[in-house]
Parts: sequence; C-alpha cells; structure tokens
Amino acid sequence: MQTVEIIRAKRDGQELSDEALQQLVKGYTHGDVTDYQMSAFLMAVFFNGMTARELGTWTMAMLRSGQVLDFSDIPGAKIDKHSTGGVGDKVSLILAPLAVEAGLKVPMISGRGLGHTGGTVDKLTSIPGFDMDASTDRFRQLIEEHECGLIRQTDQIAPADKKLYALRDVTGTVRCIPLIASSIMSKKMAEGIDALVLDIKVGSGAFMRNVDEARVLADTMIEIGAQLDKPVRAVLTDMNQPLGWAVGNALEVQECVEVMRAGEGPQDLIDVTIELVANMVLLADAFEPGEDFDGCKARLREILASGRALARFRHLVEVHGGDPRVCDTPEEVLAQAPHKAPFAASEAGIITAMDTAEVGMAALDLGAGRRTKEDEIDPAVGLVFHKKVGDAVEKGETIATMHYRDEASFKRSTTRLERAISLGQQGDELGTGPLIIETRS
Amino acid sequence: MQTVEIIRAKRDGQELSDEALQQLVKGYTHGDVTDYQMSAFLMAVFFNGMTARELGTWTMAMLRSGQVLDFSDIPGAKIDKHSTGGVGDKVSLILAPLAVEAGLKVPMISGRGLGHTGGTVDKLTSIPGFDMDASTDRFRQLIEEHECGLIRQTDQIAPADKKLYALRDVTGTVRCIPLIASSIMSKKMAEGIDALVLDIKVGSGAFMRNVDEARVLADTMIEIGAQLDKPVRAVLTDMNQPLGWAVGNALEVQECVEVMRAGEGPQDLIDVTIELVANMVLLADAFEPGEDFDGCKARLREILASGRALARFRHLVEVHGGDPRVCDTPEEVLAQAPHKAPFAASEAGIITAMDTAEVGMAALDLGAGRRTKEDEIDPAVGLVFHKKVGDAVEKGETIATMHYRDEASFKRSTTRLERAISLGQQGDELGTGPLIIETRS
Repeated sequence: MQTVEIIRAKRDGQELSDEALQQLVKGYTHGDVTDYQMSAFLMAVFFNGMTARELGTWTMAMLRSGQVLDFSDIPGAKIDKHSTGGVGDKVSLILAPLAVEAGLKVPMISGRGLGHTGGTVDKLTSIPGFDMDASTDRFRQLIEEHECGLIRQTDQIAPADKKLYALRDVTGTVRCIPLIASSIMSKKMAEGIDALVLDIKVGSGAFMRNVDEARVLADTMIEIGAQLDKPVRAVLTDMNQPLGWAVGNALEVQECVEVMRAGEGPQDLIDVTIELVANMVLLADAFEPGEDFDGCKARLREILASGRALARFRHLVEVHGGDPRVCDTPEEVLAQAPHKAPFAASEAGIITAMDTAEVGMAALDLGAGRRTKEDEIDPAVGLVFHKKVGDAVEKGETIATMHYRDEASFKRSTTRLERAISLGQQGDELGTGPLIIETRS
Repeated sequence: MQTVEIIRAKRDGQELSDEALQQLVKGYTHGDVTDYQMSAFLMAVFFNGMTARELGTWTMAMLRSGQVLDFSDIPGAKIDKHSTGGVGDKVSLILAPLAVEAGLKVPMISGRGLGHTGGTVDKLTSIPGFDMDASTDRFRQLIEEHECGLIRQTDQIAPADKKLYALRDVTGTVRCIPLIASSIMSKKMAEGIDALVLDIKVGSGAFMRNVDEARVLADTMIEIGAQLDKPVRAVLTDMNQPLGWAVGNALEVQECVEVMRAGEGPQDLIDVTIELVANMVLLADAFEPGEDFDGCKARLREILASGRALARFRHLVEVHGGDPRVCDTPEEVLAQAPHKAPFAASEAGIITAMDTAEVGMAALDLGAGRRTKEDEIDPAVGLVFHKKVGDAVEKGETIATMHYRDEASFKRSTTRLERAISLGQQGDELGTGPLIIETRS
C-alpha cells in the first residue's frame, strides 16, 4: 500500500490493517515516509481517531522501533507508575521506595519537565551525585539487586515516538488522545514491566482540564494495555492546586524526605501516593494474606510512618550515586536559593481557586522549569505554599515562600502568582474537586 | 501568529484572519512554512473547510503569489471557460472561435491531460506547428489583435498553487472541495478575465461523481468569484459517457473541424458548447438587441452552421503558428495511427452504461493520455465511437473504431473497453442523465 493510500484511508474513516500501520511507523523511523506525509496522517488521526486494534498495533510498532527491555527472568512483580504531569507532582520519589517496601520491583524510566509541569529526572538529579544516565545493563542490575532502577528516557527507547512527538509539536497534533496515549504507552511498555498504574491528573494544572477528557485518555491507555497484554489501572486525581506544599526541584525532594521521615506532611501528597501504590500492589496480586485494598493502604501508611520508606529511599539514592545525607539534612545537602521572600495575601479572604498551570509557570519564572527543551534548570528555586485552596488568610499573611535567585525573576513570578491565586469569601464555591476522583481499569 | 497556532486554529474550527492565511501562502511559497506544516493544515481544511471569506483570501493569496495579468485596458468583455475535466471533452476548440464570433474576447490558459481526462493543450498541439508557449506579452498581443489567445499554464501563474498541488497529491488532500475550487480559481483569475463560465462535469468520467458534490464545488467557485468581484456561472453537464464521438487528441481536433464545418456532428458536443458560450455572452452582457438566452443560442447555432466559427478557428490556428490546412483536410495534416480496428459488440443488446473513466483509461492505454506528468502523448491514437449509451447494437457490430500503434496497447485497451461498456436489454435503466443538468450562479 502506498503511503498516500494509507493517509486517504484514515482520512475517509476506514480502519487500517496492521501491515499499513507498521509500514507507516517503520517507514517514518527510517525516513522512507516523509514528514509531510506523516503530519497529514496525524491530522487525519486527530479527526478520525483510531480503533482499539489500530491503537495496539500503532503502539506496538513504536515500541518495537527501539530497544524493548525484558525483565521476565527477574522474579517478582515489576510495576511502574506514570503520571500525565502536574505541578508539585513529586509522587514518584516516595512511591518508588514505598512500593519496594511493599514487595514490588519498580523499573522506572522518567522524563524531564517541560512548560508548567515538573519532571522526576529534574527532582532526583537535584540530589548531588544522583546519576540517571545508567546503561540498560546497569538498569537491569539495579532492579535485580536493589528492586528499583531510576533512569532517564534514552534515545534507545521508542525512537519512533521521539521523532513523532517532535513533528506533532510543530503541526498542531499534540492534543490528540490516541496519539498522547500511544506515545506514553510505547515508552512505558518498553520498560519490561508486568503492569502499569496511571495517575491521570485533571484540572487547571493538568493537560486534561476536565474529567470527561481524562476518562477517555485513561480508557484509551487501558485499552492499549489490554491489546499488549499488560494490565493497566488509571487513577484520576485532582490537579486544581499544586500537590503538596513545594513546587521546585530541591524543595520537592526536601518535602519528600520530610514525608518519609515520619509519614507526616501534606496530606494530599500522602493520599495520592498511597492510593497509587495500593493499585500497584493490587496489579501485582501482592496483598498480604487476608488483606484487602483498604488494608493494604493502612499497611502502606504504617511503612511510611515507620521510616522504612525513607531507609529504602536512602539506599536507592546511594546505589544511584547520590549523597545519602539528603535523608538526614536535606537543607545542607541540596542547593539553596540565595533569597527568600513571602508572597502575601493582598487582602483578607478565602483562597477559592488556583490557576495551577500559572502557579507552575510562576515556578518556571524563578528558574525551576523549562520553557524550551534547551533551557537549564535551577534546582534551588521555587515556591513553598503555606496556604492552599479553602484556607482563610489575613491581609498580608504569607500564602507562599518564594525561593529565588534574582529580583527580575522574583518580580515576574510575583505578578504571575497574583493572577493565579483567587481570593473570595467564606461560602464561595471552591475550584478544587475530590482528590481521588475515581479509578478505572 | 506562529504557523503551528494557525494550524491549531483551523483544526479547532476557528475562522482564520486574512493575515494568517496570507502569511501561510506567502511563507509556503518562499519556503518559510514547511511542507509538513502545510500538509497538516491542508488536512485540517479537509475536515473543517473554509468560510467564504477565508476562501476568497486564500485564493487571492495564491493568485498574488505569481504574475496576475491585467487586460482591463483592452476594450470588450474578456471571458473564459473552465472545465473540471472529462473524456472526449474538446469543447474549448469550438467554444473559443464561436465566442469570438459572438463578440467576446477569450484569454484562455489551458492545462495538459492527466490520468483519464484529456487536456486542451494536448489537443491543440496535435495540430502541426501550433505553439502554446507564448510569452505573456504575446498573449496580450493575441487578445488585442485576434480577440483570443490560447496558451499553456506557465510557472509564472500562481506558483503557490503549483507547489500546493504537488503536496496535496502525495498527502491525501486532493479530494477537498475548498482546495479544488481555490486551486482552479487562483489560476483562472490570473488570466485577466472579467468573468468565467465553469463546465462542472458530473458522472462516471468526471472528478465529481454525483450532482450534490458538483453543486457544492460550483457554489464554492461562484462564492470565490464573488469574493474577488468576478461573476461566475457554473453549468453542470453529464459525463456518464464521452462527449462527442472521438477520444484522442488528433481525432478530437478532426471532430471539432467537422462540427464547425457545417454545425453538424455529435449533438451532445454541440449542445454543451452552445450552452457554455451562451452563458459567456450572458456574463458579458453581450446579447444582441431584443435577444434573450434562447435567442442567443439560436444565433450561436447559426454562426456554427454558417462556417464562421471554422473561419475564425482557421485564423486562430494560423496566428498561433499552426497549419491552417487542418480546417480543410484534417486527416492529411494531423498524425494518423498506423492501425485501425473495430471494437465490436460481444452480443446483441442496448448499451446501457459506460464507465467513462475506464473509457478514458482505454484511450490512455493506446497512448492518448498520461499516467504520470512525465509521460509522452501519442497524438494519433484514440477511439472513435459509433454507438453510445441508449443505442442498440447487433452482435459483432462496431461500437468504436480503435486507432492504435501496436498490438500490446491495442489488447490492453480492448480488455478495458470490454469492462467499461455495459450491454443490456431494451427498457433497462440507462447510466446517463440529462446532458445539461442545471446552471448555477
């Protein structure tokens, strides 16, 4: 089949054969299918979508465009979690050691942050010495010997997706659920995992702004998992305010250490993490005898309170080359911003809503994020909230502490925060929903 | 506005500003907008269409990408006709001299044939010496001094359309009415005409297979004309069988000469030509005193019967460098195929239908057309029908005479004709509709 015939068939709403889809992905990876043909095809997919079978084949073809890890010879359930991205989303740092303590193995390949969302790579590498550039052999060794490997996305994994994403970025085909879902799944399914838990963020700080869209994305990824014989569970969680208190890389690491020290800290962060790990345990069929889902969550809370998660984190930091003292005196080990200043309430009232993408951009303004892929990140800077949605503030009371490097970025960030945070009166409707919206499988 | 934002806006069904559309066409012509961005945009147009204003701006931008002829200083109404393409469609050869005899000026820039449809350039240049490569200065001179210039499409006219068409051809965006309409109109509106008559072919030999589609195309081009202040009338005509008897370049020239010699010959060809010229006269507001549309048609028939059209054709052939003796002894002047053979009815019956695109391909098989832009045409070969849809045939009776060069092409063509022509019984429904379906303006 000629490429133009494949494009026309998708344009006309026909279901494509496995051969046609494989030919397209393979041809594109090797340069036989041109960018202009692929972009026309992607736009046709934007309008006509993909069937479940098409999605499975498409994802599998992207997956097979690169290295596919196979850890089936390593005993135990290997489960990962993927978040669609939010602001202050530091869950992975607590989730990985907690899941290991709960009996799982966690092969985790993470990305960097872009735009208003942060990335796990940026947070972990703000720990001095922490190395995420491990080879796949070393990744395997980490999982075999330490139950968890934490590495960054490499060019060897799903190169077709990398090339496609760059094209989508400049041709208006990023916001397309089948393409988003297959992009994520092609990378995750290359990790050698047995099953996957998804954290689908919903709200003003997320890519998915409403629950209906998020459900479609969740179900699409679950369906791709089914096509590829990998069980997937998707937890929809609220992203109408930052998760936890801190937004900024070293600040978020410090927050995670504090949570793991005693199981205390921002309740939303703890609740989302526990919910996701419990779903990982469920997928691994690793409940303790007589334990149910709620029982499992209670056990996870105990592990967190006992300090076992922190001990495991310390070990993981160490085996990844990082400075383990981050678990004792994070403020001494992690980079600190030269200046701090309060962001204060301009009047008394209730915080009724946060434009959370704007909060993320306020952190980016300080240097905590990237506008473009080439930007450098400043690990030290960011925001630490003291008040969140629903909290009452007095005029002049500190809503957040800003950790900054220079006056210009501080001013830009302040202006943005002023726009992002809405103050209202007691009784006003709040811009947040339930934290754990629902779980789909 | 960034190109990707323009693509996203069209994708999301927003109406684009004039600036955005102009930026796109200009940028694409100069290479600042990439092929992959343009193909994504074109696919978005396939799904979301264009508003009347967008179409006008888009067409105007393509028009202005090249040379725009201006003959407003030449007195008299300058009117052209464009056909969307059919099989045996030799109308232009009779229409141009007839329109001149009716008092009009005809600046006509024609294309070559591709696929199953023939092209006016191929037909006229089968007359020895006929030169269609005139400069635009010579084109002007022809119109000034001889009321009619016949030249081929040049790279100077609407280069943006040329580049866009090549991209559409390989990205599945050819079959898109706004893009078809703007492509045609950008070229026609560069001819320096005051108004345009369209012959929208409908049926098995046409690009538009049904009347509804043809109406949308007609109305789209009329709307573009309105946006550009150029009156357009569109005549929908039947293309469920070849127009006239001959299909093949020299054979069609010979048929036209015979029609102009005495106003006799295939009635469908004469009727369509008269209808189109009458619409040109109407647009030019050039009815004789007291004449109405039907009166005009009667006058045109008289001109044809009187031999005045042939005399004018002879003159036009001469001023374009062609051998005027084609009007006296066409069979001596025009190339002749070395062999002739009948295509005979395999059984007795009524010809109920012709797959007319296949008839065109049967002529192409003989060498009368081009599969790809690079193919050479054999002017001598083709088909001359003796029977058409509705005619009764005896077993073994000749349906068409095949003019061919070699046995291999003769066999291929015969096999195709067998498939293309359906025989049935008296009383069976016929595959043709009314010749002149309707006129839109």
